[in-house]
Amino acid sequence: MLVRNQDTRSRDYDEMRTKYRPSHADYTYQAKYGIRAWQGGGRASARETIARVAAGAIARKLLAELWSVDILACVVQVKDIVAELNAEILTRDRVESSPIRCPDESASSRMFDLVDAARKSGDSVGGVIHAVARGVPPGWGDPVFDKLDADLAKAMISLPAAKGFEIGGGFQMTHLFGSEANDAFRRASDGRIRTRSNFSGGIQGGITNGEEIWVRVAFKPTATILREQDTVDMDGNETTLAARGRHDPCVLPRAVPIVESMMALVLIDHALRQRGQCG
Amino acid sequence: MLVRNQDTRSRDYDEMRTKYRPSHADYTYQAKYGIRAWQGGGRASARETIARVAAGAIARKLLAELWSVDILACVVQVKDIVAELNAEILTRDRVESSPIRCPDESASSRMFDLVDAARKSGDSVGGVIHAVARGVPPGWGDPVFDKLDADLAKAMISLPAAKGFEIGGGFQMTHLFGSEANDAFRRASDGRIRTRSNFSGGIQGGITNGEEIWVRVAFKPTATILREQDTVDMDGNETTLAARGRHDPCVLPRAVPIVESMMALVLIDHALRQRGQCG
Amino acid sequence: MLVRNQDTRSRDYDEMRTKYRPSHADYTYQAKYGIRAWQGGGRASARETIARVAAGAIARKLLAELWSVDILACVVQVKDIVAELNAEILTRDRVESSPIRCPDESASSRMFDLVDAARKSGDSVGGVIHAVARGVPPGWGDPVFDKLDADLAKAMISLPAAKGFEIGGGFQMTHLFGSEANDAFRRASDGRIRTRSNFSGGIQGGITNGEEIWVRVAFKPTATILREQDTVDMDGNETTLAARGRHDPCVLPRAVPIVESMMALVLIDHALRQRGQCG
Amino acid sequence: MLVRNQDTRSRDYDEMRTKYRPSHADYTYQAKYGIRAWQGGGRASARETIARVAAGAIARKLLAELWSVDILACVVQVKDIVAELNAEILTRDRVESSPIRCPDESASSRMFDLVDAARKSGDSVGGVIHAVARGVPPGWGDPVFDKLDADLAKAMISLPAAKGFEIGGGFQMTHLFGSEANDAFRRASDGRIRTRSNFSGGIQGGITNGEEIWVRVAFKPTATILREQDTVDMDGNETTLAARGRHDPCVLPRAVPIVESMMALVLIDHALRQRGQCG
Repeated sequence: MLVRNQDTRSRDYDEMRTKYRPSHADYTYQAKYGIRAWQGGGRASARETIARVAAGAIARKLLAELWSVDILACVVQVKDIVAELNAEILTRDRVESSPIRCPDESASSRMFDLVDAARKSGDSVGGVIHAVARGVPPGWGDPVFDKLDADLAKAMISLPAAKGFEIGGGFQMTHLFGSEANDAFRRASDGRIRTRSNFSGGIQGGITNGEEIWVRVAFKPTATILREQDTVDMDGNETTLAARGRHDPCVLPRAVPIVESMMALVLIDHALRQRGQCG
Repeated sequence: MLVRNQDTRSRDYDEMRTKYRPSHADYTYQAKYGIRAWQGGGRASARETIARVAAGAIARKLLAELWSVDILACVVQVKDIVAELNAEILTRDRVESSPIRCPDESASSRMFDLVDAARKSGDSVGGVIHAVARGVPPGWGDPVFDKLDADLAKAMISLPAAKGFEIGGGFQMTHLFGSEANDAFRRASDGRIRTRSNFSGGIQGGITNGEEIWVRVAFKPTATILREQDTVDMDGNETTLAARGRHDPCVLPRAVPIVESMMALVLIDHALRQRGQCG
Repeated sequence: MLVRNQDTRSRDYDEMRTKYRPSHADYTYQAKYGIRAWQGGGRASARETIARVAAGAIARKLLAELWSVDILACVVQVKDIVAELNAEILTRDRVESSPIRCPDESASSRMFDLVDAARKSGDSVGGVIHAVARGVPPGWGDPVFDKLDADLAKAMISLPAAKGFEIGGGFQMTHLFGSEANDAFRRASDGRIRTRSNFSGGIQGGITNGEEIWVRVAFKPTATILREQDTVDMDGNETTLAARGRHDPCVLPRAVPIVESMMALVLIDHALRQRGQCG
Repeated sequence: MLVRNQDTRSRDYDEMRTKYRPSHADYTYQAKYGIRAWQGGGRASARETIARVAAGAIARKLLAELWSVDILACVVQVKDIVAELNAEILTRDRVESSPIRCPDESASSRMFDLVDAARKSGDSVGGVIHAVARGVPPGWGDPVFDKLDADLAKAMISLPAAKGFEIGGGFQMTHLFGSEANDAFRRASDGRIRTRSNFSGGIQGGITNGEEIWVRVAFKPTATILREQDTVDMDGNETTLAARGRHDPCVLPRAVPIVESMMALVLIDHALRQRGQCG
């Protein structure tokens, strides 16, 4: 029902105004500032990322034109469905041809059904985004204060709903021996120094080594759901809340360009620094 | 053999000077600066974290005295051995009584044996550190530019060998429905607003909600190992390298106070900001 | 002539597009960026200060309400005409009742005539603005990196056409002996520690001492004048330029609220820091 | 008397511990922090500038080698004695051959006598330092947030005892008409665009125009003098204080390398930015 009568809308608005949505920023903003944008559209809304994407688009153009750096992200996991990625399918065309922005067609299809089912049941799901930057030369980054991987971590965890960050081998790498996880150096046919594996994710000691930069970001299930949940109101009374309106049951597809933009913004900053410092 | 003759030492030094250790910062520093501290002790050495621990000690004192905030970290995983943590054993005494800094005695013992075995075989292992901040009031943090969880992510990923970061439910949370992962609000007996679960890890929308802050950091296996590995030298020739000297086969126990210090430094910054901004 | 025919306008526009105005930012922007907003309204226009005044208005409200700090600026000199200021006439009413924003009525009248004469002769004049902050408590500021007087200097010299900055006794103070220029401490009737003179301008060692903060800012004559001047065009050919349109022959009256705003923005930053750091 | 008996020393120390030196940072530090380094050598001591000079030495080397930029400062005024400067005598040799660091021999000699007389009478004097940067190319600086002249102002006013800052024509320029003060552009014999005068001091709109950067900094008379002065002690009682020990009656000669260092540090920052941003 797209059109609701005024009474219903008023009741909904009053609920949003007085009750805290669980796992949203309603309560923390109220605790810090004494006010909050309960109507939506405030700084806790993912709409805030519009500016990041706008700036990121410029950064991506500069990275491509001046340094031949290309950035691509995609959905690699939605809840328990994990895509199989490889260099062949990891193309912008494949990503953008999937409504989920997952280039593994089989996984994409199952993810779509899962998100649809979550929507119908008034629930939500999360997942993981994989991002790669190709063509970054060795030497970008900083050894202590602004390590490139640390800046990427801050950029990604600053995104709404982001709860985890990995570079290269990430958490999986903790299950390996050093002799398995180290990236052996080799000399490529073009004379460049390359590595045989890329557990480092293109960054060693905070500085790029010329391999692809690999990053993964975990996004929790959307906090705002239509199901009734326990909460409290602004007077501290326990109550329940079931959100209304159109809320995205899975932020992953729309988070892909945001992740790409944050990666571009971090990289362009370090590209300029590198040119300034090392000429 | 603690004493080596001069010839051996010279050969070792020459190897370290001319060959890049795989997955260390040797190559990236050389690529960026044209020089590097190959003798050890440079900015890519974990010794750099001494200053962080010194400053962190002061930050922890201030947090404890002025805001009754307590910070504790411990080893929760070494390679495939995972400790079982609960509030009862998560005490400083329990952590410090373990040589691995893991408060689960059984796990600690097995971790110790595993690290010892890795040492004997000239290999190394990694793992995960869990950190908790207790007593942080609601309202610390920032809504967009310096979200508290983003600042924690940057702080942790800036540590040597850190490859992953999680806040609250982290990557595991991506396997849940929103209705499972949301932290329902309740009214505590003292009238305070609390949550029933803590998948948010104490931070919502970049701002603390008064629950414990939970963070996990993945550390890769030590890069410098005594086993022979493929690498290249500074002239680009393919060669092999087997490191000598005393290298830690597992950084986890020593990373615990470093993680605590970084958490303290981030929190004291935000404590001062909060007092400045909100009085 | 408010209405000019299209041909005249086109010729004017073409002149502005191709010729560099002497002592304006035309040439430096072109040298740095390869483009410039020659139509006016770019970042080198004083219109850029609108945002500073908007933010300064909020800062002034906060300073007044939370710390009882009051900020007032006025024109103290236009070319060779120097106003005589004293505490009695240094009020907002007196300042705002003068079209020049100079509270000395006699000087204000002569300044007005001088500016009018400059306008009629197609020339321009500069001068000095005096600013005072009253009620700032002791302790605001920083001992090394962000001294309060240094931050005020940066804020003021960042204003278009600003060429000089003084705090307290400023350049005049260089003509005194230390025994004349030192501000002797005394105990006021309310028990507070005060100084007999205020050559320090309320700041000692980068930190406020509780006296009034006194600042003076020199503004050069407006660069854009209607008289013909020697210049070069974008091809490097020597030529002449006589600006058209309505250009302010003296920026001083309009710079008064801008100076006040910059002072307020610097002070509110340090007020928040002081509350954060010292509670 | 270089050797004083213990009783005298103790009494002196006790005086310094309990009484505030007028126009020094004693009182403001005490007001802010509740403690201060009354023994000397704290952050309010000019000794703090050692680090600036050390870093400045490196910056000057880089500026000279990579950009052929040369920085030179000298004393242009001590109390009422004003040196006559011109390009011919403004050389490092001439500056360093004067004990006052003033290249005008006649003025230098009179300044020396004046400082000596001030020392003998237990008093102090101030003055003005002139600094020039030669060879800076057009384009360094920033249009709004970090204008080069604003950064220079902050750098200079951050120095101990600095009370005034001028760029180019400074305060004197306020006495001129725009038609007199504008720097007309001309085409030099080498084809470069130059200006006929340099009232702008090499910076227009926050960005360099390729002319010499001219800066002047006013230093007040040394606050610590041997003459008895009115002050209060830490209990708020009015008393008198006559400082003991060796205190410099004029900081100007020793401030010259400090001013040069701050200029170098600001310029190297902007040199790196310019290379980063504009390639």
